Amino acid sequence: MKQIAPLTVITNTAHCIEPGVYLIGAGPGASDLITVRGARILGNADIVFYDALIDISMLEWCPSTKLVQVGKRCGSHSSSQHFINKQLVDAAGKYSVVVRLKGGDPMIFGRAQEEIDALEKANVPYEIVPGITTALAASAELKQPPTTRELSRTLTLTTLPGRCAHEDHKTTIYYMARDQLSEVATTLIAQGYSIDTPVCLMESVSLPSQRSFACTLDELRFGDVHHHFLDKQPVVVMIGEVYRKKLHTLIPLVESKNHFNELQAAS
Amino acid sequence: MKQIAPLTVITNTAHCIEPGVYLIGAGPGASDLITVRGARILGNADIVFYDALIDISMLEWCPSTKLVQVGKRCGSHSSSQHFINKQLVDAAGKYSVVVRLKGGDPMIFGRAQEEIDALEKANVPYEIVPGITTALAASAELKQPPTTRELSRTLTLTTLPGRCAHEDHKTTIYYMARDQLSEVATTLIAQGYSIDTPVCLMESVSLPSQRSFACTLDELRFGDVHHHFLDKQPVVVMIGEVYRKKLHTLIPLVESKNHFNELQAAS
Repeated sequence: MKQIAPLTVITNTAHCIEPGVYLIGAGPGASDLITVRGARILGNADIVFYDALIDISMLEWCPSTKLVQVGKRCGSHSSSQHFINKQLVDAAGKYSVVVRLKGGDPMIFGRAQEEIDALEKANVPYEIVPGITTALAASAELKQPPTTRELSRTLTLTTLPGRCAHEDHKTTIYYMARDQLSEVATTLIAQGYSIDTPVCLMESVSLPSQRSFACTLDELRFGDVHHHFLDKQPVVVMIGEVYRKKLHTLIPLVESKNHFNELQAAS
Repeated sequence: MKQIAPLTVITNTAHCIEPGVYLIGAGPGASDLITVRGARILGNADIVFYDALIDISMLEWCPSTKLVQVGKRCGSHSSSQHFINKQLVDAAGKYSVVVRLKGGDPMIFGRAQEEIDALEKANVPYEIVPGITTALAASAELKQPPTTRELSRTLTLTTLPGRCAHEDHKTTIYYMARDQLSEVATTLIAQGYSIDTPVCLMESVSLPSQRSFACTLDELRFGDVHHHFLDKQPVVVMIGEVYRKKLHTLIPLVESKNHFNELQAAS
């Protein structure tokens, strides 16, 4: 679906926003997949600390706001979490509405706990505004629910290749697994998963550069991320029986190499 | 945080919305926790089929649209899924922009698969707009991430009391478990969970009537839902070591009965 551009009308001075720090989930990337609440607070913020992974179009919600880039980009140098915590507490002393804009949902693999602890220790009032987590945005783009009544009534979200216990028909979605494709596959096969278990991979979920591929667990074992995916782009890995039909409808992972050199040069 | 009311400014005729059926996640309940994309499509819909569990304030996004209530309310009579599927396909023949508004995220325990299959079979174009799933909205309200670097790098979402394998420090969030509190607790204890594992329960997440309680797994065994929670209100159950601090800061589950009769009478 065509992405709908941000409108400045979201800035709404009729509703006062309480002073404090707001940890806001930006969602997966597309600027209109933030919540209405998140967009409105962004539009009224005095300062925004945003993750380097946030797509730049998201900042159109706050065109006249002081912007500070913090956080990580896969494989690059990044602000330390301790320094981000300090910046948030210091900003709360100088500005009324301080936003910490985090990719996806702030509570899922987002290191929110460290920021919450720092804000509570400094007695800074704060609120958390949830965001669409990447696993669910990817499911919407794939048009494939991770849970269905017949095949899976359990969804596990994890960053740990080695810790997913085998259960028949369970769906697992891995975050931050782009450098661990082979380890994920090897571990699951060792735990008893069938080698033909379907796998879907999605890069740059919800952005114009989004790409999706499918393979089996057996094929994933030989997946070398540097031959398949662009540097610095997040990849979400979805594994389970619910994805079997996608083996026939998505581009096979092995073919992702075909146009890879051109993509890499253009990025 | 005070909820921000819907504004009609979201209706934006400058951006054409393609004809078709949109499965839109309404989020947990508060009307401003829908995505910007979802709100804009709602504001431009010709007909909206909405779950009975959706908070009525959400429909302020589409004040002049034909509204059809479908789906379930805990314990009440509801439209059959087959009939909802047929209504969507029929509406696509009569209207341009058809919305199916579902609580939470459409892809998590939302029976989206049946609706997707029906739309594909009838060759109806459709898109899915993700929503904030209740587990993550509840985490934001609790100000407690379900995953932390120290205690849990895995989050499981499930509707099945008996299917969660024991792993140290893993967090599990149960949907639709309000009538299975005792079964969930008994099963986890039988699987090796410590009887003092912390549990948080949240009713009517993100709505003005939201209530939160804490207890241990041992106490949850004796939880009788009809003494603790209002009829027909969804309850999300969060279990894991990450919630230990909440045992001291939330109201104990046993005290939820204190004002229960007045609440029940008022609802």
